Amino acid sequence: MHRKEDARFVRGRGTYVDDVNLPGMLYGAVLRSPYAHARIVSIDTSAAQAHPRVKAVITGQVLESLKLAWMPTLSYDTQAVLATDKVRFQGQEVAFVVAEDKYSARDALELIDVEYEPLPAVVDARKALDPEAPVIRDDKEGKANNHIFDWSAGDEAATDAAFARAEVVVAQDVLYPRVHPAPLETCGAVADFDKVTGKLTMWCNTQAPHAHRTVYALVAGLPEHKIRVISPDIGGGFGNKVPIYPGYVCAIVGSIVTGKPVKWMEDRSENLMSTGFARDYHMHGEVAADRDGKIRALRVKVIADHGAFNGTAQPTKFPAGFFHVFTGSYDMEAAHCAVTGVYTNKAPGGVAYACSFRITEAAYLVERLIDVLAYELKMDPAQLRMKNLLKPEQFPYPSPTGWEYDSGDYPKALRLAMDIAGYEELRKQQAAELQNWLAGDHTGTLTGIGISFFTEAVGAGPRKHMDILGLGMADGAELRVHPTGKGVLRISVQSQGQGHETTYAQIVAEELGIPVDDIEVVHGDTDQTPFGLGTYGSRSTPVSGAATAVVARKVRERAKLVASAMLEVDEGDLEWEKGRWYVRGDREQGKTIQEIAMAAHSSLELPDGVEGHLDATTVYNPPNLTFPFGAYICVVDVDPGTGQVKVRRFVAVDDCGVRINPTIVEGQVHGGLADGVGMALMQLIAFDEDGNCLGASFMDYLLPTSVECPSWELGETVTPSPHHPIGAKGVGESATVGSPAAVVNAVMDALKPFGVRHADMPLTPAQVWRAIQGRPLRTDLAIQ
Amino acid sequence: MHRKEDARFVRGRGTYVDDVNLPGMLYGAVLRSPYAHARIVSIDTSAAQAHPRVKAVITGQVLESLKLAWMPTLSYDTQAVLATDKVRFQGQEVAFVVAEDKYSARDALELIDVEYEPLPAVVDARKALDPEAPVIRDDKEGKANNHIFDWSAGDEAATDAAFARAEVVVAQDVLYPRVHPAPLETCGAVADFDKVTGKLTMWCNTQAPHAHRTVYALVAGLPEHKIRVISPDIGGGFGNKVPIYPGYVCAIVGSIVTGKPVKWMEDRSENLMSTGFARDYHMHGEVAADRDGKIRALRVKVIADHGAFNGTAQPTKFPAGFFHVFTGSYDMEAAHCAVTGVYTNKAPGGVAYACSFRITEAAYLVERLIDVLAYELKMDPAQLRMKNLLKPEQFPYPSPTGWEYDSGDYPKALRLAMDIAGYEELRKQQAAELQNWLAGDHTGTLTGIGISFFTEAVGAGPRKHMDILGLGMADGAELRVHPTGKGVLRISVQSQGQGHETTYAQIVAEELGIPVDDIEVVHGDTDQTPFGLGTYGSRSTPVSGAATAVVARKVRERAKLVASAMLEVDEGDLEWEKGRWYVRGDREQGKTIQEIAMAAHSSLELPDGVEGHLDATTVYNPPNLTFPFGAYICVVDVDPGTGQVKVRRFVAVDDCGVRINPTIVEGQVHGGLADGVGMALMQLIAFDEDGNCLGASFMDYLLPTSVECPSWELGETVTPSPHHPIGAKGVGESATVGSPAAVVNAVMDALKPFGVRHADMPLTPAQVWRAIQGRPLRTDLAIQ
Repeated sequence: MHRKEDARFVRGRGTYVDDVNLPGMLYGAVLRSPYAHARIVSIDTSAAQAHPRVKAVITGQVLESLKLAWMPTLSYDTQAVLATDKVRFQGQEVAFVVAEDKYSARDALELIDVEYEPLPAVVDARKALDPEAPVIRDDKEGKANNHIFDWSAGDEAATDAAFARAEVVVAQDVLYPRVHPAPLETCGAVADFDKVTGKLTMWCNTQAPHAHRTVYALVAGLPEHKIRVISPDIGGGFGNKVPIYPGYVCAIVGSIVTGKPVKWMEDRSENLMSTGFARDYHMHGEVAADRDGKIRALRVKVIADHGAFNGTAQPTKFPAGFFHVFTGSYDMEAAHCAVTGVYTNKAPGGVAYACSFRITEAAYLVERLIDVLAYELKMDPAQLRMKNLLKPEQFPYPSPTGWEYDSGDYPKALRLAMDIAGYEELRKQQAAELQNWLAGDHTGTLTGIGISFFTEAVGAGPRKHMDILGLGMADGAELRVHPTGKGVLRISVQSQGQGHETTYAQIVAEELGIPVDDIEVVHGDTDQTPFGLGTYGSRSTPVSGAATAVVARKVRERAKLVASAMLEVDEGDLEWEKGRWYVRGDREQGKTIQEIAMAAHSSLELPDGVEGHLDATTVYNPPNLTFPFGAYICVVDVDPGTGQVKVRRFVAVDDCGVRINPTIVEGQVHGGLADGVGMALMQLIAFDEDGNCLGASFMDYLLPTSVECPSWELGETVTPSPHHPIGAKGVGESATVGSPAAVVNAVMDALKPFGVRHADMPLTPAQVWRAIQGRPLRTDLAIQ
Repeated sequence: MHRKEDARFVRGRGTYVDDVNLPGMLYGAVLRSPYAHARIVSIDTSAAQAHPRVKAVITGQVLESLKLAWMPTLSYDTQAVLATDKVRFQGQEVAFVVAEDKYSARDALELIDVEYEPLPAVVDARKALDPEAPVIRDDKEGKANNHIFDWSAGDEAATDAAFARAEVVVAQDVLYPRVHPAPLETCGAVADFDKVTGKLTMWCNTQAPHAHRTVYALVAGLPEHKIRVISPDIGGGFGNKVPIYPGYVCAIVGSIVTGKPVKWMEDRSENLMSTGFARDYHMHGEVAADRDGKIRALRVKVIADHGAFNGTAQPTKFPAGFFHVFTGSYDMEAAHCAVTGVYTNKAPGGVAYACSFRITEAAYLVERLIDVLAYELKMDPAQLRMKNLLKPEQFPYPSPTGWEYDSGDYPKALRLAMDIAGYEELRKQQAAELQNWLAGDHTGTLTGIGISFFTEAVGAGPRKHMDILGLGMADGAELRVHPTGKGVLRISVQSQGQGHETTYAQIVAEELGIPVDDIEVVHGDTDQTPFGLGTYGSRSTPVSGAATAVVARKVRERAKLVASAMLEVDEGDLEWEKGRWYVRGDREQGKTIQEIAMAAHSSLELPDGVEGHLDATTVYNPPNLTFPFGAYICVVDVDPGTGQVKVRRFVAVDDCGVRINPTIVEGQVHGGLADGVGMALMQLIAFDEDGNCLGASFMDYLLPTSVECPSWELGETVTPSPHHPIGAKGVGESATVGSPAAVVNAVMDALKPFGVRHADMPLTPAQVWRAIQGRPLRTDLAIQ
């Protein structure tokens, strides 16, 4: 089954937000701060306002008079829409110009005269809590320093006790550096406020249209039913398109002020400099183990750098909540983790860049710690993992942090990955190669073999665990069946390339036994779809996919009532087979869904209380998260002379439960693996000590291409989720979660002869070369 | 409560179909037949095709190759999209030009060379069935003559027996002439077919978007879920915008052929000449009565002129089915009616021009017959009506035609109208005035006092009675409640000025106890609304209004489940009061709908099986029609010297059950009364004997203005419909149904001294003058 949406994408017929052009539309541009931290002394907009094609110049002062200067974030913080008192990160929004064309808007930015008084910046998160550190958020009452939150999980006393008893303890500092999702399409919006009807129509490329509507309602003071958010085709999201950015609000204000539609589109550098980042976790991990490798306990301390505003999606009641999975896929007695979130003078961080909400960091840390333990115990990392992986009979597994993993057969997945890779043979080749190398032949490269095993927690879960702005993590689905039996499914999640138009149609087609082309999927428009929290955290299939299966089953049950009237038999005497209800014991007597749909809308007499349609609505509240998992093996060739790393092979065995569309699952995995290679080897957003962003273009922020990627070798196991209606688990982010550790472990494996146990990502040639030289490495902004 | 939609209408901010302009849009124009009946010998389009700005020229031959030359109508007939073999009415569609601008499209029409061979035309419906009459529909197999249908209702034998026993029998031929609804906005469409997605988006100003979608699906061979019909703001419908016209299909074909959006808009003359007409009923009525005026039976024979295609909405299993109400509001032993439908060489007739489906004709006939009986018995027409009106205790009343009138107090309504009019005093003044006139003072005008009492049957009813294309007469409603408690109601009917955005919001607000501004009403877009049959036949309130009340009550019940979880009490212990559920016996403990909506979407734990939302969907199948009624009294001044009629006063007492928005009801009544004055005195579409249409402009087809209308005097009684959830009945067409007879009866009342018993509408000065002269009148196309 090929993707239905590709028919328009491959012909260039998608409609992205920048393709939306409305009569009389104006264009907005944002003036951004050149400083990471500075007081604003004055802003003079008179020259810009005098520009003949400029229609409005909006500053924080203007917004203050409209009570719009600050907006709520998705994480219980507030963020300046346009800076008033001071700027808190380089690239922060200071003013917004609306003009008749985009060139004039940009030109006029240069006519705005802002006087700044620079302040010292907090760049290193580990120094943010120093008593003498500059205070970034002096706007917050009772926030005397840069502290945001303390969060912990697990049993600290039991963990300490296990460490006290341990035969072996290893410790390692691990940085997951700040990275940017860098979607192909930057963020943008067209805001169209109709003064007469009081209705705001907002085209914006968001992953969560309904959550955006609620925030716009709160920010702009418009009633929720007077806001329509349309999220058209999107060129990639990866969490970058979950947050509300000031530009969106400025476009709305621009439209309200001018009475015209206003378009705002970021350029690449704005996107890379000022929209939501991910990671930036300074982690310290300790493992307690027996001498034979049996892990007893895990202890973790984290400083989490959230930037200047805790602004981006963090849909958990507890910040960093998904760090809950920090024990990974392993059985142990006890574990404890403490995370402290701090403000720094950087753009807001913490977006749900696959995977969301700290799972990627947690998975990376534990997989690095396992390899560090193997290094110290001189054990094979595959054997060490096999010894400690959870056993199938342990599921559903209550984790040391109080979560319940739904299902899994972890050893099977790892064995399959090892079989595909030919693990034993690889180790033999590596040993022979090393033999040569130690014998003095330094002409070639060194092989490294890296393993990672990850467990994700996706679905953004059960309502008791988490919310956004008090809203539960549910998603709605509506299925309308037309008289001819063709249907339209309306869902609350939004695709940024995931292929929802195909997979959701497949779910309905399967449940109703009708052709997949008979179902049209509608999404991305709050006026056309039921409420729901959107697409991120791999939650579409676990939540909205479940809603879709449920709503299709409701339609099937409704069809049964109508079929019973058509066939004049009791409901209880009907049996379902693909696409039809028939009379038990008489297969000839039956009615297809199409016949039933027409009859439901026809003049057929129906029993009292049976309505003449097959439509259904549902909202699905997941009873638990789903826990996809996987075993990855990466083989690299490292050139010790240059530090160059080449990924030779990559084996990925994913278990995401039942696969709705295997081709789309494979596509998702391919993308995530490439992502992992990029993060492990190339991607870094670096800052100098004044907080200047050193990588806000694709010349500096390097993304992997096909040149850096091998031909992926995929395998699968299928452990259905017991609580999902069709047993699916979600796979969008799995490969991004699992792959960085496999690549880094492989490079470290290759560097073992040099006595290198750990080096931080990204493992650029310089970083590898320096590791080999044995020079001390700065683990925070190590790239020159 | 003022109309919410007026905020945009009075500022000129409505969006009508001609306001829809798409990038790259082309313009279509229709070439129409100058003949009423002619064979097409040849069509040469080469010159038009050579026009530099012409993109396509489409003829019936082109459509035949696409199997699109004929389309199904809403009345089980087929209609030529573009004529191939011959043309059958003046103005019929022959070719369609698509050009880069509308002027070029019109210019190119003149470059098309059509050779016609004229044929004799059938213009007088009464001659259509003559064996030697030309056969119009030689396309139809087994249709050797111009017969369409025979339909009858009532008990013929019982009626004949009652007539045989009768003390008095009166008979009268009555013509209800052909009229046109003439909405302010003509018909039009923008068709946008996307080759890549296979999706057709069709903006067209239809009263029935979902029915249109189904027909487009059948015509164009597109699957139903790949068609989106958007019916934007509409400048009046009155039944004219129910049918599918060939121009719509041509616009679709034009878009498919050119790959561009194609706009087609009629001009006024096209609208008046070729879109759906109404009436054209040649009726013969007989009344059997006692000498004291008690009516015993009624016998009616009708020749119904449906034009060249039985093309327009007639959503009954039996053509002319709503003639069922031909016994009007009166008690009698027996009644029988026979209607024969015929083809003539005129544009398709029979649109649901208020009121739909033959009620207007039936109501006019019986009210004329009552006055003819009063004339012959020399009785006061008010007294005669009072004697024969159904009594309140007869309801629910089984009519002689097998229908069941739901509720009414007819004498009360008539008495109220007489009180408002000061009937007795008027009669005294009239007698005095006549006295003067007979005494030789002929300088002034003569007063005429006319009464009519009507019963409508609206809601287009119960599914066992009728359908369109096999679809039952149901309408859907969906209510979504956002987390903040604001809601969106989606309905399947479409407003053409009726104020749905206000009245439907009021229904929801009343049922949920929330502010009316918290509800947004969405309609007119098949992608956004549930399936339903649309707005005509005064069916919005009876069917869709009922669906709205039902869906709001479903939301209330759903809210009860959530409130029970919030308050931790059993559902059974909750009581409803305006806007909130509270704990029985403890009024302090309660939750408002807004609080419940937020909680439903929050992280509140809900019992198993209770979904986290308040949304609901329904489709309402009306168990019966509703039967609004009214008593009207018209006072006219007739100048016997010139034949000029001036409407001096008009009293209208309407009973439409419960009134949702009294101002809107009054507005509907005002419009219908003006309509009735126009039809009674001015409006006529006339044809010469070759079938040339003599009135295709507003110079010839006269519509009433404020000059012709008095200040309306309204009264009301309220008899709720027992089966409608809020007791409402629908009022859109009442005044159009009831008023013509009141005006004509008033004029005939004034002309009594001349011994004039009947003259056919429209009672233009010439018609009145000739009636007085005693000259024989042609009752079909009487106006010179």
